[in-house]
Amino acid sequence: MSERQDPYRFASSRFEVVYRLAVAPGEAEARARAIALEQTVELPDEVVRDPAIREHVIGRIETLELPSPGEALATISYAVDTAGADLIQLINVIFGNTSMQPGVRVESLGLPEELLDGYPGPRFGCNGIRERLGVTGRPLLCTALKPMGLSPVALADMAYQFALGGIDVIKDDHGLADQDFAPFEERVERCVAAVERANHETGARSIYAPNVTASGTQTLARARFARRAGAGAALVIPGLVGFGTVQELAGDSATNIPLLTHPAFLGGFVASPGAGIAHDVVYGTLPRLAGADATIFANYGGRFSFSRQACLGIAQAAAAPLGRLRPTIPVPAGGMVLAQVPELLEAYGVDVMLLVGGDLHRGGPDLAHNARAFRQLLIGHSPPIP
Amino acid sequence: MSERQDPYRFASSRFEVVYRLAVAPGEAEARARAIALEQTVELPDEVVRDPAIREHVIGRIETLELPSPGEALATISYAVDTAGADLIQLINVIFGNTSMQPGVRVESLGLPEELLDGYPGPRFGCNGIRERLGVTGRPLLCTALKPMGLSPVALADMAYQFALGGIDVIKDDHGLADQDFAPFEERVERCVAAVERANHETGARSIYAPNVTASGTQTLARARFARRAGAGAALVIPGLVGFGTVQELAGDSATNIPLLTHPAFLGGFVASPGAGIAHDVVYGTLPRLAGADATIFANYGGRFSFSRQACLGIAQAAAAPLGRLRPTIPVPAGGMVLAQVPELLEAYGVDVMLLVGGDLHRGGPDLAHNARAFRQLLIGHSPPIP
Repeated sequence: MSERQDPYRFASSRFEVVYRLAVAPGEAEARARAIALEQTVELPDEVVRDPAIREHVIGRIETLELPSPGEALATISYAVDTAGADLIQLINVIFGNTSMQPGVRVESLGLPEELLDGYPGPRFGCNGIRERLGVTGRPLLCTALKPMGLSPVALADMAYQFALGGIDVIKDDHGLADQDFAPFEERVERCVAAVERANHETGARSIYAPNVTASGTQTLARARFARRAGAGAALVIPGLVGFGTVQELAGDSATNIPLLTHPAFLGGFVASPGAGIAHDVVYGTLPRLAGADATIFANYGGRFSFSRQACLGIAQAAAAPLGRLRPTIPVPAGGMVLAQVPELLEAYGVDVMLLVGGDLHRGGPDLAHNARAFRQLLIGHSPPIP
Repeated sequence: MSERQDPYRFASSRFEVVYRLAVAPGEAEARARAIALEQTVELPDEVVRDPAIREHVIGRIETLELPSPGEALATISYAVDTAGADLIQLINVIFGNTSMQPGVRVESLGLPEELLDGYPGPRFGCNGIRERLGVTGRPLLCTALKPMGLSPVALADMAYQFALGGIDVIKDDHGLADQDFAPFEERVERCVAAVERANHETGARSIYAPNVTASGTQTLARARFARRAGAGAALVIPGLVGFGTVQELAGDSATNIPLLTHPAFLGGFVASPGAGIAHDVVYGTLPRLAGADATIFANYGGRFSFSRQACLGIAQAAAAPLGRLRPTIPVPAGGMVLAQVPELLEAYGVDVMLLVGGDLHRGGPDLAHNARAFRQLLIGHSPPIP
């Protein structure tokens, strides 16, 4: 701890956030300035006296548009070194306190190379998952072990049947934690063994993705356990553990398996138009920055109310060029039925993982049979290899 | 890993969640049933065949009221063993996937002793913080080190002045992370030393609370560092790291200092009426279950738009009887000015910590002087000891 000789020089590089504001006439500039202060110095404008802090640290209004009455689009830039390679601090600068304000929504992010360089992103990405599974040229198949309340033996039997039926990725339902009725370690060991047994019979390489979401440092411990036990991937819920935990898992050498993120408890940010954060940022850009190899989200036309446009925006954000980050594979889910498969393949193209859960149970108790129907439907309607 | 002999028997004890729903005529029961399924089995009703799971695991609609046209209040109970002592799994069962649905808000929780027994809650609580500070009979004073962009030397000088002026708890602004301009460890060491120096002069026992919020397991590492370095408390942002991380810190013997939770990035749940979670649950009950000794929230009449009623509800939830959990001290904040102090003391009573930040900078550059003015105002208007 030595006294600093020279004053710190802030980096000139900045990242941008576009906020959509509900504003009264003439109020737009004051509202934008309030956000620029709130997200940085948290002080009234007039008491920030340091010139370097005024110039570099306070958010800078880059553009302010009034697309329609009562609405403003403010692009505010922030110095890269207010956040750096720390994803949760980046999220904090983007929307920490302002999330508590009504009538403001994060519409998009503009992230420069200087910032993106600090984010390795997905370790496997879409192609890495394909390699693990040995699957090219068609979308991937995913389902969930459910319902909550089943024993590890019953869940493992279900995993076996799904793998036998040709499902690529068999994940825990996100409500499976470490409950007494299905303790984490026993569940992981049984399900891994069951999927391996099925792979031995089919010659395929299906993988099991246990839910490693847990309190504090236990998430990392569970992810490492999953890897040691032979799980091919892991499921984690950033809404409950924070995106920083996903970031840590994605960089952890003792984890080193693909990560699927689950959308639960992030709904607060997307359930109300005009507030929160755009769907493609919450379920596309942020998981990808965190290093998610696959991002699960609530598809249009299922049990949730995400629009088709929002969902395609998520898929776009997961795959579009973003520094050197690998693409994250989008995983539409949430009450999808087999009848939707053709339309979904047309909408998302080949680089998608379709997650059908409940509908595989509707076809009767032979889950391997139902899984095969899903697989055949998907293969029959797969788009041509681009 | 042994084969289970008997089927698992679900506990009979249940916890309750009251959801407020925006509903079309005649739709209330179907919506409530959909939540009961979504938050547990995530399957269509007709394919859940196991009688024990139907009876115990699927959420049970206890009451369904229609208080006004277009609105329903559904009380749904869940088996305690779907969540147990795992706070983030409890949050997951309460609102994980349903958070993505529009028109549904968590209004209140009913938590039985069987569940609360798994939650030690605040280690210090309101009285424990008072003991550390040596302060009884008056509300507590809190301020923040700001703005982001200052060096550790400048922040420590500010901490010294605030402690000299009699502020009880001097916390990092929540935007201070581990940036190059104010690295975490150097900042903590300097600020701890500065506050100790002031305490030596005043004879008081002011404490410094660094922001330990970080990615993944680094939060725990920073909290332990803060304790070793002599910090009297720590600040953590559950919206960024998850409530489970707070729970872990609160139970960690190598941390063992009071925890203040900060409200940032939980705004998604409170910024829209009719969606999200009631303020008193987000900023009262959940931090207390996690073990927060003090809960900071955006006060009415400041920069944010929480209502007076919502804020008093938070203070109530922080202190009302809840199993054996100690009370969490409420910390209203967010643009409060000194002129509000008398009214705030009347509203919150003696067991409150008032956080005034920016307004202490408005009174000119002598921060110790400004702090003394805050302190005198508070002492002059303190409610009589109950």
